[in-house]
Amino acid sequence: MIDIIYVLEMVGIVAFAISGMIVARSKNMDPVGVFTIGFITALGGGTLRDLIMDNHPLYWIKHEEQPMLILAMAVVFSYWKKAERLRESRIVFPDAIGLGVFSILGAQLALDLGHSWFVASLLGVMTGTFGGALRDTLCNEVPYIFRKDQIYASISFAGCWLYFVCQWFLDNEVLPLTIGLLFIVIVRMLAVRFDIRLQRDSHSN
Amino acid sequence: MIDIIYVLEMVGIVAFAISGMIVARSKNMDPVGVFTIGFITALGGGTLRDLIMDNHPLYWIKHEEQPMLILAMAVVFSYWKKAERLRESRIVFPDAIGLGVFSILGAQLALDLGHSWFVASLLGVMTGTFGGALRDTLCNEVPYIFRKDQIYASISFAGCWLYFVCQWFLDNEVLPLTIGLLFIVIVRMLAVRFDIRLQRDSHSN
Amino acid sequence: MIDIIYVLEMVGIVAFAISGMIVARSKNMDPVGVFTIGFITALGGGTLRDLIMDNHPLYWIKHEEQPMLILAMAVVFSYWKKAERLRESRIVFPDAIGLGVFSILGAQLALDLGHSWFVASLLGVMTGTFGGALRDTLCNEVPYIFRKDQIYASISFAGCWLYFVCQWFLDNEVLPLTIGLLFIVIVRMLAVRFDIRLQRDSHSN
Repeated sequence: MIDIIYVLEMVGIVAFAISGMIVARSKNMDPVGVFTIGFITALGGGTLRDLIMDNHPLYWIKHEEQPMLILAMAVVFSYWKKAERLRESRIVFPDAIGLGVFSILGAQLALDLGHSWFVASLLGVMTGTFGGALRDTLCNEVPYIFRKDQIYASISFAGCWLYFVCQWFLDNEVLPLTIGLLFIVIVRMLAVRFDIRLQRDSHSN
Repeated sequence: MIDIIYVLEMVGIVAFAISGMIVARSKNMDPVGVFTIGFITALGGGTLRDLIMDNHPLYWIKHEEQPMLILAMAVVFSYWKKAERLRESRIVFPDAIGLGVFSILGAQLALDLGHSWFVASLLGVMTGTFGGALRDTLCNEVPYIFRKDQIYASISFAGCWLYFVCQWFLDNEVLPLTIGLLFIVIVRMLAVRFDIRLQRDSHSN
Repeated sequence: MIDIIYVLEMVGIVAFAISGMIVARSKNMDPVGVFTIGFITALGGGTLRDLIMDNHPLYWIKHEEQPMLILAMAVVFSYWKKAERLRESRIVFPDAIGLGVFSILGAQLALDLGHSWFVASLLGVMTGTFGGALRDTLCNEVPYIFRKDQIYASISFAGCWLYFVCQWFLDNEVLPLTIGLLFIVIVRMLAVRFDIRLQRDSHSN
């Protein structure tokens, strides 16, 4: 079980770091800015999760290869010419993967620590959305979680509950993780593609 | 003693959640935004308090009926037509109640953990003001604590010291809490009503 | 060893508090705003450091003379006529001292707790830059760490590594601290003076 969670964590970190670095480059930040935004996006959600659940040492302090990987990525992104031309719309897919991975992993850690499904789903949403919210705030964008034109946090919430239900019915550890994760990534991509939202707007906002 | 503190905490949470949801609705946010702002306003100050004082598990993780209540309130606020028309100025009273409750409870917890009056008063101010400051920042308002046209944090600070002094002189547990709390709520309402401020402005700012 | 670290911590706190209060006064804040910004600038970095490393009780709770000193400084700054006329550019020197002190002390605490050089250097940068970043964000300035026209975080990073290397080679506890600290302060002042940056801009940004 350790292994698949570790692998997923790395996937989520790489995906969120890419999303952060694309935004940082599109804002024309210098290499330190690129690293900082990548670091905060990739590790922000998990840091909040571990602080709230008093889970020390923090995961990236225990696994220092994670910040090292982000540092290496920042060097590549900063000096790789093509990265400058990546449009911000390219972050949707890596952001969806990061959202999926960290939502499920945050919820799963909360369950492991003995919390209820409800508390675990809240912690899943926080873990999944916080890094991206920091990225958007620091780069002067409105965070997805507060944009009315797209569903975001509610997909994370639904995915966590799907994961709990699957875990309840299936006698398997990997399958529920995979289902919850794929649900979030796919529904998020569909929501962006087909412009699905929770509330139609009467005002022009 | 447990009981009155628990009741007060619920009062403070409901009051701050109302203030957050009114602002979120007036900004025309969708249901997820309304819940998020309500949650952060109501639980932000206490979360900061518990993290700084290493008081785990966090109070809303221990009492999961608190986030559940906020979720129910968010549903009501999102689909209740009248909520949309509530003007932002309506938040002054619930915000004053939340400020009073969380200032006193933050200070009281710090005393329970053996901290000095001075440290306890700082923690009271932080607990009382942080949720509202997050609400205002996320909704693009200048936080009360930084508005020059009103006194806010200083009322919380004075209320905490009044609570300490009353507790010192009175052989009673409920009365000092009540005095400190009422002091903050009443003085805050008077300050808004009569436009009391710490410093007259020479500049037009 | 305790003594010099405590003295340095006080120097860093005073320097960062001065930088925060100058900005707060230049924004024409009232005394509560001046105290709040001074407090957050001076104690923000160390609070983040202690929370991330689970180092409780927080240093300013253990040493309550530190927030008391900041309170006294806020009174002086608020009622001292000359403070109003201090231009914001005056914060460069106190900010550089705060950056130097907290970078080295953050890194040193991480080493004491058994972390690697790499993790310690990240924690040094976070401790050194977070207070100033909060100050600038709350006062509606772009944080130094995200300004392209100046190097800031990279000096802190380099200073931490210089400190580690000196500590490795020198059989002395005070000298490496002093070298790392002076390196950061001097290079930062030179970077501002001679406009040294990591990346020349092709865009007008």
